[in-house]
Amino acid sequence: MANTHSFETLTLEVADRVATITLNRPERLNAFTGQMMLDMVAAFDETDARDDVGAVIVTGAGRAFCAGADLSEGAKTFDYDKRSDRPDKAGLDELDRIRDSGGRLTLRIFESLKPVIGAINGPAVGIGATMQLPMDIRLASTTARFGFVFARRGIVPEACSSWFLPRLVGISQALDWCLSGRVFEADEAQKAGLVKSVHAPEDLLGAAQALAREIVDNCAPVSVALTRQMLWRMLGADHPMEAHKIDSRGVYARGQTVDAREGVMSFLEKRAPVYANKVSSDMPDFFPWWEEVTFK
Amino acid sequence: MANTHSFETLTLEVADRVATITLNRPERLNAFTGQMMLDMVAAFDETDARDDVGAVIVTGAGRAFCAGADLSEGAKTFDYDKRSDRPDKAGLDELDRIRDSGGRLTLRIFESLKPVIGAINGPAVGIGATMQLPMDIRLASTTARFGFVFARRGIVPEACSSWFLPRLVGISQALDWCLSGRVFEADEAQKAGLVKSVHAPEDLLGAAQALAREIVDNCAPVSVALTRQMLWRMLGADHPMEAHKIDSRGVYARGQTVDAREGVMSFLEKRAPVYANKVSSDMPDFFPWWEEVTFK
Amino acid sequence: MANTHSFETLTLEVADRVATITLNRPERLNAFTGQMMLDMVAAFDETDARDDVGAVIVTGAGRAFCAGADLSEGAKTFDYDKRSDRPDKAGLDELDRIRDSGGRLTLRIFESLKPVIGAINGPAVGIGATMQLPMDIRLASTTARFGFVFARRGIVPEACSSWFLPRLVGISQALDWCLSGRVFEADEAQKAGLVKSVHAPEDLLGAAQALAREIVDNCAPVSVALTRQMLWRMLGADHPMEAHKIDSRGVYARGQTVDAREGVMSFLEKRAPVYANKVSSDMPDFFPWWEEVTFK
Repeated sequence: MANTHSFETLTLEVADRVATITLNRPERLNAFTGQMMLDMVAAFDETDARDDVGAVIVTGAGRAFCAGADLSEGAKTFDYDKRSDRPDKAGLDELDRIRDSGGRLTLRIFESLKPVIGAINGPAVGIGATMQLPMDIRLASTTARFGFVFARRGIVPEACSSWFLPRLVGISQALDWCLSGRVFEADEAQKAGLVKSVHAPEDLLGAAQALAREIVDNCAPVSVALTRQMLWRMLGADHPMEAHKIDSRGVYARGQTVDAREGVMSFLEKRAPVYANKVSSDMPDFFPWWEEVTFK
Repeated sequence: MANTHSFETLTLEVADRVATITLNRPERLNAFTGQMMLDMVAAFDETDARDDVGAVIVTGAGRAFCAGADLSEGAKTFDYDKRSDRPDKAGLDELDRIRDSGGRLTLRIFESLKPVIGAINGPAVGIGATMQLPMDIRLASTTARFGFVFARRGIVPEACSSWFLPRLVGISQALDWCLSGRVFEADEAQKAGLVKSVHAPEDLLGAAQALAREIVDNCAPVSVALTRQMLWRMLGADHPMEAHKIDSRGVYARGQTVDAREGVMSFLEKRAPVYANKVSSDMPDFFPWWEEVTFK
Repeated sequence: MANTHSFETLTLEVADRVATITLNRPERLNAFTGQMMLDMVAAFDETDARDDVGAVIVTGAGRAFCAGADLSEGAKTFDYDKRSDRPDKAGLDELDRIRDSGGRLTLRIFESLKPVIGAINGPAVGIGATMQLPMDIRLASTTARFGFVFARRGIVPEACSSWFLPRLVGISQALDWCLSGRVFEADEAQKAGLVKSVHAPEDLLGAAQALAREIVDNCAPVSVALTRQMLWRMLGADHPMEAHKIDSRGVYARGQTVDAREGVMSFLEKRAPVYANKVSSDMPDFFPWWEEVTFK
């Protein structure tokens, strides 16, 4: 497939098995719209489908990561029945009229089969902050700042952030940020564990690419896809036996593959591995092991 | 309502929309009794009902926060059938005879519609430590110390602390404190994330009030009440879809209110917001979204 | 019982109410085998049954803690139908053919009635890292290193680690380690909260023994056993009411025992406690309060 794919509100580039999704409305500080949600979902559909993509980086063009909901409609911003870009105009059916578009996006990222690394290059406020939460690792520029500002706008945390955020940084830190709605710097985000590390602006993408490379160069893609889903899904399991059921099947199925032989032999022979199994065709037959949950 | 309300074991003061509950048995180091539980539950009923209260601070009179269960009955302390202040004497029915009074209190704080900030001014041991856990943020004086001492008294952690504590500080830290029962300093509490910050004794209440002000001056009260319940309740949800169901309804309902218009417009106009919606009358119709759980 | 018990792959020593399990295949860096799983399960059965054991330390003989699965069968390592030491040869029935042996071990440690302290004396990779996760506290030597290397071997995280690890260090850190499969040092493990502290090699066992002593010398054994299970089990509870049901029964039952009287009186009299209740005979009648979950 093409190595560069331009959507209306973002670009998707693939190089050396690493995809980069760049939010691309720099003149609006990459403010979020219904179209951006649809474009991001489509971009993750593409990265999941392509076997030449082993990891995904998400960043923003210009000086912001994402300044939040587009406020150009002023007082109508959060009144979905009055906004001119109502989600239903973007192709959603009646049933989904009240669905939060931020949640549609974060649930899609949650389901990604490829690791997702956020490279937070500047202000990330509202949905710009909450869209990051189902990503696996976040890195920040020194110019990044974060705000879960919903209570200051008279609404509530969205994009499933009430589920994700306490699981990333603990319930007390999540409450502190969401009850006060205050904007905070990259250093505070790092101390709290929201971001893994903070970088000079010019070093940010390189650091994200290095993390992606470590995965792509060393790990079996099918193992990575299974591992990602196992860790995220087991957050909702009441007992470790749920993990035992899945990881027993996982080790048993994967243990018989050429990838497992290659993983051990390349380690013993101290050479780089070459994995044959593909996410598009070689996921084990017990995958997915969960029942789909629906909005209703 | 009156700005000061004295209960038998504590005082409740309201000033500038911030309520302060002060445990007030300083001659007993604010040791916990059945009456104190009843008084605290009544105080939280009052702060929830009053629209002139936007946040709640809990602290202790004198040199202790709360030294734990009142040990004045010595060996009978935890033998509820023999204590002279049996909970049933305090108005509880037979069915509730074995219910832990600490848990009655923490479940009430868990349900608070107003943010709760603990200002831990001195020793906080046993129920003095566990009653803090459903509070949203804890600040400590340098003179504070903490002890989950139950295994050293021959009993077990109470007040639902086996549920709360691992969610605040992680399971390993919680096990370390509860299995050893050792008393530790404010610094260790801060490193573990149990308290947000440590202050000189004379600065503690001021720091708690500043946090409360940040919420009260900037955030919509109905949004704050919903946010608080969303984050705490989603700790028990197995899948982010549970959050998506609620936050979609939350953004949709709140997005149509005058508060959402005021939140956006005051931000765009760079002025302080004035929110019209009240917790007493304007909670959205989907609240509460959960079914009550009962003791049985 | 004997103070020293040698199993095929490990030793169990009991001194001053502290048991030490030492993985004992130093010439193979204590690499894990089906026999080691069986031996460890038997050792934890013994420590649970013995009232002269109040806490358990797990460490490794020689320079490694546990280098992971024994790779001596090369490419067949994870192909359970082809390995010469198939688990069924070790006495497992057909039904359990696909069960992961790492998970059988970690589920057994999860159920331990005695606190478990890991003294990680050197490299701990694969199952050598994941077997530590259901232990209550981990200490590391400066020579320790850790690797959740499964994606680099073409398989998936096992031993229920997808359930345990995010609960110990948060989901982002867990994803970072498991998606990259990289090996990391003791310092990184400490920063992430995987280990409580890092020690010079010659100080490691002493530090573990000091932690064990703090529990054994001060805490009532039945209280410790209940506390351990309450904290671990409540990780899977959806609402704090689940804890309230159990801790109410726990405080009520334990409050009437001689241990609760001794706990309070020894504290008031500032002397060391002497607890009479035994884990083997004096667990309260509501224990266990959960229904067994099975593999199927």
